[in-house]
Formats: sequence, structure tokens, C-alpha cells
Amino acid sequence: MTATVDRDRLWQSHMEMAEIGATPKGGVCRLSLTDEDKVSRDLFVKWAEEAGCTVRVDTVGNIFARRPGTDADAAPVMTGSHLDTQPLGGRFDGAYGVLAGLEVVRALNDAGAETRAPIDVVVWTDEEGCRFTTKTMGSAVFAGLIPEEDVLAAADPDGRGFADELRRIGYAGTEPCGGMDVAAYFETHIEQGPILENEGIPVGAVIGAQGQRFFRVTVSGEEGHAGTLPMTMRKDSFLGAARMADAVNACAFAFDPVPVVTVGHVRVRPNSRNTIPGETVFTIDSRHPDEAILAALKEQMSAACGRIARDLGLGLEIHEASVSPVVTFDAALVQAIRDAAKVLGIPCKDMFSGAGHDACKLAAVAPSAMIFVPCKDGVSHNELEDATPEDLAAGTAVLLRVVEDAANRG
Amino acid sequence: MTATVDRDRLWQSHMEMAEIGATPKGGVCRLSLTDEDKVSRDLFVKWAEEAGCTVRVDTVGNIFARRPGTDADAAPVMTGSHLDTQPLGGRFDGAYGVLAGLEVVRALNDAGAETRAPIDVVVWTDEEGCRFTTKTMGSAVFAGLIPEEDVLAAADPDGRGFADELRRIGYAGTEPCGGMDVAAYFETHIEQGPILENEGIPVGAVIGAQGQRFFRVTVSGEEGHAGTLPMTMRKDSFLGAARMADAVNACAFAFDPVPVVTVGHVRVRPNSRNTIPGETVFTIDSRHPDEAILAALKEQMSAACGRIARDLGLGLEIHEASVSPVVTFDAALVQAIRDAAKVLGIPCKDMFSGAGHDACKLAAVAPSAMIFVPCKDGVSHNELEDATPEDLAAGTAVLLRVVEDAANRG
Repeated sequence: MTATVDRDRLWQSHMEMAEIGATPKGGVCRLSLTDEDKVSRDLFVKWAEEAGCTVRVDTVGNIFARRPGTDADAAPVMTGSHLDTQPLGGRFDGAYGVLAGLEVVRALNDAGAETRAPIDVVVWTDEEGCRFTTKTMGSAVFAGLIPEEDVLAAADPDGRGFADELRRIGYAGTEPCGGMDVAAYFETHIEQGPILENEGIPVGAVIGAQGQRFFRVTVSGEEGHAGTLPMTMRKDSFLGAARMADAVNACAFAFDPVPVVTVGHVRVRPNSRNTIPGETVFTIDSRHPDEAILAALKEQMSAACGRIARDLGLGLEIHEASVSPVVTFDAALVQAIRDAAKVLGIPCKDMFSGAGHDACKLAAVAPSAMIFVPCKDGVSHNELEDATPEDLAAGTAVLLRVVEDAANRG
Repeated sequence: MTATVDRDRLWQSHMEMAEIGATPKGGVCRLSLTDEDKVSRDLFVKWAEEAGCTVRVDTVGNIFARRPGTDADAAPVMTGSHLDTQPLGGRFDGAYGVLAGLEVVRALNDAGAETRAPIDVVVWTDEEGCRFTTKTMGSAVFAGLIPEEDVLAAADPDGRGFADELRRIGYAGTEPCGGMDVAAYFETHIEQGPILENEGIPVGAVIGAQGQRFFRVTVSGEEGHAGTLPMTMRKDSFLGAARMADAVNACAFAFDPVPVVTVGHVRVRPNSRNTIPGETVFTIDSRHPDEAILAALKEQMSAACGRIARDLGLGLEIHEASVSPVVTFDAALVQAIRDAAKVLGIPCKDMFSGAGHDACKLAAVAPSAMIFVPCKDGVSHNELEDATPEDLAAGTAVLLRVVEDAANRG
């Protein structure tokens, strides 16, 4: 008997989970290590144990619900995501990856299917990064990318410590975090962008995640009276910043495929209607799946900003505030996703992830890949985030097949 | 004996006045109707009475210090300005016009010179407009441009009323405000811009004040994830606003003489580095001495913004938030200023005022004109505002001549 996904059960689990921290406009607020996070973790653990899993919790609160395999020594196949959300988050960002993993276990149980390797459904701690110091804290410690002691020592803006909060909600586990072999890691997630929905394709095989370079640009001019200083004598920092924003946007289109370049934050000083702006600071968020293009883009943007500053007699400082490298997922696992979709008759396209995910961290220590499904209007980190039962089930069907195959391989 | 200005006495008066509300960096803080304003008014009244003037105060606190003429029925020649300052203002903005008037009286006294018409040295109440509701309150009521009851009913941000504060400092006078004949009004002022200093010319004959049109522009796009929304699918409100700021700046240069156009205030929503800006609001401050050019400029700027909004699929709303008409000073008085400078051997150039002044209000009810002198680096509304004793004396020498001539005319 072939294991199959139960669309309605999967949807029902999403709807029950979404009641925890539900917001008035249909979203979810489950900040990491809050009471709501605890309740959602408890519900997952209850469901996992009902499905025959053994639950372990590691020292940073990552939860591993294991469906045993026939070979007790085999490295597990992992799948999962996170249950914490943005302050005004949606019902599917994170929860989908966890509940799709649970559905895989339930579907295998229904079919009486055994696998050689065990399957771990994982809930990573604090993916969103909106309460403590950084994003993907649990998976980054698991992958050895950031020190465990730094995460445990982190505090929220009210001074409440990560370690204290973890103990308070009962998820300060005893298992060591990381240092274990993982045969493969799969993560299902809503796309958080519009591509799949626009093309009417239910499943994306994610071949990697874009690298990101983030800049803070300071343009220095001179304040002056808007009524009395002639145009030819001005050093208007905002005029410079405006031309630079237009120019860096245009730089993106010099490359194929086109990178994303965003000027999202702008601060004008003194920001008075009748004073020429003396200083303007703005940010550039640039992302692309190819490091060489990111580097060339940086050069072009810097040169364009430099020319504009010189033309206008302005000071310019470009500070590269953060760099996130390109992540390339495991080619064999990505191919397995394509193959599974083909066998199941589900349209599937290759794509890059624009955002960061736990899988980007896992990729450092295990063969990893992601499966995307569409979300309504590409909207995420928003109470209006939505997805269809059919698309969620399609992604989970692909997940079921690749997890089962991986757990039976070798 | 010809009356002559005493440069050192004039400078010394400025230095004494500047001690009232002196700030650590060499500026002055004398907000209207505060204790500091009262002390500065008291000092002026003391000096004026010592110079033989009779002091009257009107119902909004404008002070008139009269040096009598030989014809008791003649309409007075007025000169003056204000003693209130910005919170971090300079020593000369306003005070110069008052103290130059006082120096004219002192110089005429020294020379034993009589005039036919009386000379009123005036201190206008609340020119700066940074405490109550609007600028040039005292002169605007005097000129019948705003209702006296509105000014008396105004309150500061702490809820303290204009009328109460006026009584508290002892300057709620009994003379009716306005409604009197004025033969001529002259006002000396620092330029508050860089033109005279740059050209090395000590005196400007101000032929008028620029008109101003002030706009609030709202650009509406759609928020989106900086990592996941492809460039071709974006509606980036800040990209639109940036192009518009560049375009309206360029519009200025289509006219001769070049208007001033300033985008000084910018607000981006949500102003998050990794979110495409959904809405951007910015201001346009446009000024020019010709109403027709201001109107044509408005058309060009609106058209340019409209084209950019259409190109990018953005919403656009341009709200004309305020209009200040062009002021043209009295041609005969301006010619008198030019002539006086020529006779005195003082280089003088015609110019427009970029900012508003009490004289712009007086122009509605009396022949009016202004005399500008340079200020260091064009800086004003700033503790660092500075001017030289020589330039202040040169402007006052011209003022002395035009006031004396006007008071002896026909």
C-alpha cells in the first residue's frame, strides 16, 4: 500500500495550530519562547506522540520527533521548520514545514510503511528572529554556525533572557544541540513571493537561496534655507540620495537574471520642509543567487553613487553592513524533488529562495533542499498570508515521496 | 551737521541685546512672550526713552517708539523688525532691524536734526512663529491680514495663551493695532542667504519677496518582501518619490532666473530595510519672485511627477498645502535706497528676499522696502549666525538717509 497524504487532515492541523496566538485579522502572533510558542510546541508534541514518535528536545529547545526506522544505527532523514511567527504573522510561514512533516509520519503510519532510516520531524527554535538577537537561532546552533552560549545569553528588548524563557516554557532540553549525522534535510515552506502563484505551478524545487549584501549609505551635504540659498550653491544630500536610489535600482537591470535591489529605509536630516537636507542615510538590500553577480552589482552601485556624489559635491560613505553567502542546496535532493513531482504528475519549477530559512543553515552540515508552495498574492509576514489546502497537500505529497525514498536509500 | 551712524555704538547695542537669552554656542533663545522677550523689550524701551522717544504699545504687543517730528499731523515714517528669535537663533535676525532704527534716532539726536514727520521705531510681536500658531503675527494684525482675535486666542504647545502671556510680560497695550496712516516703512535685516557675502557687496536693495507654493506629495505603491518580489513586479513608492525629487529639482532649471525648489521632508512607510516601501510622502517648497513662473513651475512639476507615477504604476496625490503671494516693495522707496547707497559710496545690489519678513505684511498697508546686509556663510536660524560691525553700519547708514529723507518729504 502506497502512503498518501490526507489533504483534509493536513488542513485541519493547520487550522488548529493557527488558533494558538490567533490575531483579529486572521493571522498569528507566536513570538519565540512566549506562552503561545509553548502551547504550539505542546500541541505538536502531543500529535507527534499520538503518531508513535519519540520526542527529544535539545539544549536550545529544538524539538525532534522521531519515527523509528528498521536500522537503529542509520542517520535520520529530517524534515521540519518552525512554529514561531512574526508579531503580525500568518498561519503558514513555518507551521507548514512542521505540519507537512507530521503528515508524512501519519501517512506512513496509515500505510503501515516502514523505512530503513528513522525520520525526525523537527521544530527549530526562533527562526523569525524578531524577539531576541538574530534569525534561525536554533538551526544555526545545530549547524555549528553560531555559538550555543551566545544564543542562551541573548535577551529580548525587555531584558528577559533566552535561557530563562526556554526554561520557563519547559523546553530547555538535555540532548546536545547538533554534532549528529543527518542523512538528508527537507523543508517545505510557502514561497513568500508571487512566482508560483503567477505561473500557476503548485510546487517549487528550491535549488538554493540568494546571497545578500546589505549596505548603509550616508550622503553628506550642507543644510541651508530653502528660500534663500540659490540652487547652484546647494549641496542637497537628499537630491543625491534620490539620484542614487534611482541609479542602484537601474543597476539591477544590467544583470540577467535580474538581482533584487531595494532602498527600503531612508532617514533625512533635519527633515524640515524649509531646510535643504544636510544628511541623508539610506539602505540598499541586494540579493542574487550568484556571488559573482552580487560582487559585480556592488561595484556598479558603488561607482554610480560615487559619480552622483562627485557631480553634486556631496560626501559619500558606503558601509557594507552584512553579507549572507549564497546557499546551494544538494543537487541530488533537488533532483529527487523534481523526480517525485514528475511521478506524481504535479507541475514543478526550479527556483531560488529570496528569503533565509532553517534549511539554509542545515545545508552547512547535511544534504538539504526545500519544497515551496504558492501563497496568495505572494504575501507573507502579514496576517493576510494565505495558501490553499490543495497546494499545501501537493507540496506534502512531494515531501512524503522524497523523505520515504531517502529513508530507504543506501 | 549731517547725521552719521556710530558703528561702535550700534555694535555695542547688539552685543548687549544678545546677552538676553544668550545660548552656550553664541546664539540667542528669546521665544516670543517669554521672560527673555520681556527683558529684551524692556531694554529697548529704556534705550528708546533715553533717546527721547515716546513709547506706545498696541493691543497685540507691538511697540512703537516715536521720535517726534515738527508736523504733529504728519503720518510717521516707520522702521523696525522683531526681537523674538528661533529656539537656537542668532544675534542679528530681527534685532538688527530694531537696533538700526534706534541708531537712526540716536544719530539724528547727535546731529540735532529735526524731521517734518515723526519717526517710529517698531518692535513687531512674534515674527518667528515658532511658539504660537503662525509667523509675523504682530505685523499681520497691524496690516489687517489676520484677525486680532485669532492671534489673542492662540496658544503655545503647553496650552499657554497668547493674550495671557502678553499680559504676564506687561506688553498688553491699549493702543489700537493698525488702522493708522504710515508714510513709509523700512526694515533692515541680515540677508539670511549667501549672495551679498559671495559678491562682496555690503547692502542689498530688496525689491520684493518671493512668492511660495508648498506641496505635499503622496506616492502610493505596494509593500513587498525585498528578497522575494522580482524587480519587474514591484510598485516601489520610494523609487517613484526619488525620481520625482530629481525631476522637480530639474524643473527649476527650466526657468530664468532659477526658482528655488526644495524637497526637505521625506517619510517612507514602513521604512524597513527589507520591505519595499508601500507609501512615500514628501514636500516640495517652491519659491520665485514671479507668480507666472511659480504657476508654470507647478504645472511642469505636476506633469513630471505624473509621468513618473504612470511609468511605475504608482498612485500620486499632489496637495498644494500653502500659497504665499509674491510681494513687490514700493518702487520709489527701493530707488531711494539705491540712491542713498550711491551717495554714500556703498556698493548695493537689487535682490529678492527668499524668506518672509514683517515688511512683507506692512507692504499691504504702506509703501515698504527692505535693506539687506550680508551674514557670514549665509547662515541664519542658527547659533552661529554672524555679521560684521562694518556691514551692519553700512546698512544703517543707508537706512538713516532714506528715513530722514522720507520724514522730510512733502
